[in-house]
Amino acid sequence: MKMSGGVEWALHCAVVLTAAERPVPAARLAELHDVSGSYLAKQLQALSRAGLIHSVQGHAGGYALTRPASEITVLDVVIAVDGPAPAFVCTEIRQRGPMAAPPEICVRPCAISRAMSAADQAWRSALGAVTVADLARDVVGDYGPPVLDGIRGWLAPAEE
Amino acid sequence: MKMSGGVEWALHCAVVLTAAERPVPAARLAELHDVSGSYLAKQLQALSRAGLIHSVQGHAGGYALTRPASEITVLDVVIAVDGPAPAFVCTEIRQRGPMAAPPEICVRPCAISRAMSAADQAWRSALGAVTVADLARDVVGDYGPPVLDGIRGWLAPAEE
Repeated sequence: MKMSGGVEWALHCAVVLTAAERPVPAARLAELHDVSGSYLAKQLQALSRAGLIHSVQGHAGGYALTRPASEITVLDVVIAVDGPAPAFVCTEIRQRGPMAAPPEICVRPCAISRAMSAADQAWRSALGAVTVADLARDVVGDYGPPVLDGIRGWLAPAEE
Repeated sequence: MKMSGGVEWALHCAVVLTAAERPVPAARLAELHDVSGSYLAKQLQALSRAGLIHSVQGHAGGYALTRPASEITVLDVVIAVDGPAPAFVCTEIRQRGPMAAPPEICVRPCAISRAMSAADQAWRSALGAVTVADLARDVVGDYGPPVLDGIRGWLAPAEE
């Protein structure tokens, strides 16, 4: 089981956008992270489609968060990039073969599916309990305020 | 993010083996589940490599659980088939680009990686809290004792 690598890039971009004072062009985010612009654009488009960031047009245009980082969870970003489907999909094996359970008694998900759903819920609860603001706070806690201040300065347009 | 489909087959086989009075040939398990023998053999081999089932040789040979079903968790089966790696792998994005964090301050996993690890642990704890014996008990609870009794009878060699 493997999460899309795009999730990691999208989360880093979301944390960086908490430090930006104005919209950040996709090319600038790519440069900051030393990653292909077209690859990062794909993750930014996923965040945009999910309504977590939006694109501001014009000379000082770029991407910005659509709402406070305290209202965007890690789960929101994971779902935006990796989709909402649970990792385990029940294919109703109990209804196969010579001892198949008849459909009319299969109204409730089977025990295996229930166990998987409970684990999936635990995973989503944990990811839903951490916001992008929490991540930004943790970054400052880990490395000190100069880190995000430095990124903020680097992101500021050179001509101003 | 998608779990290997083999996990579902492996869990069904494990539950079925709790009902068997003697080792069950792989071909019989495939017939019971109406699935390709070679596909199911792959999942059974994964369970065997992980030490959850073992192959008994000879005329009445087949697969059997290696220990009580109450000592085999759903997580054991997931790891056997899908591997032990967590779904999220940190690629140290913080160490990239013009604002890269120097390696010497990156001794602790980054905040994003920690959030993902906490969720992974929650998922593993949930899967580790359910045993194959629990699943078998739930099957009986859902459909009544005749279900596993019926499978036990079906699995018994015809010549006896």
